[in-house]
Amino acid sequence: MIKKFEKILSKKGFAHLATIMADGTPQSTPVWFDVKDELIQVNTAIDRLKDRNMRTRSDVALSIQDPDNPYSYVAIRGKVEERTTEGADDHIDTLAKKYLGMETYPYRTSEETRVIYRIKPIRVSGIE
Amino acid sequence: MIKKFEKILSKKGFAHLATIMADGTPQSTPVWFDVKDELIQVNTAIDRLKDRNMRTRSDVALSIQDPDNPYSYVAIRGKVEERTTEGADDHIDTLAKKYLGMETYPYRTSEETRVIYRIKPIRVSGIE
Repeated sequence: MIKKFEKILSKKGFAHLATIMADGTPQSTPVWFDVKDELIQVNTAIDRLKDRNMRTRSDVALSIQDPDNPYSYVAIRGKVEERTTEGADDHIDTLAKKYLGMETYPYRTSEETRVIYRIKPIRVSGIE
Repeated sequence: MIKKFEKILSKKGFAHLATIMADGTPQSTPVWFDVKDELIQVNTAIDRLKDRNMRTRSDVALSIQDPDNPYSYVAIRGKVEERTTEGADDHIDTLAKKYLGMETYPYRTSEETRVIYRIKPIRVSGIE
């Protein structure tokens, strides 16, 4: 379903991730992402606002612009299919490599535990 | 409240606007915006998905990156304070001027009626 937007999704644009607060209102922030097995993967730390929201409500939306052409974008509505700490430390390194060209994530702190969210696209639209 | 992020807000980054669907799930798309009287103004056409969502639920979120530094961003949670067609045609021209450097909006169609949403920021966070 996201195949059509492969070009945008292969680039280094950020995903603007919308989650739902406890009171039903939306929240949005830019995040790093990658794609694996047709799922959008994002990585956050346990107990951050996004983590608390997605733990409670699995419905999310993402919009991603082509960094080379802001009029090209993909808008995804989907559901968190998996939340796991397994592999999350390696995954944030993979994202640091993608976005920063660094071998390891430079902002790691001993206090935080990283967590991966795997998001299954349900509705996909946009402009290639 | 958004004064702190004046620099980002004065630039040509897009706002990723999250609205709530009828079923309570989020939706996100990149949109043009400007700021007037401390309100974030976006402009859409009547009966588009965003318009239908915001008409029903005034809770929205926006995240905007600095186009010159993606690690600088502002995240806004707010409420639609006003929805009006008055001045909306002029406003889309103002946005075309800001984003495209054109005097008039080039994608106008006779079928669509433009509408302005004025969004009052309630919670503002981010990295300057």
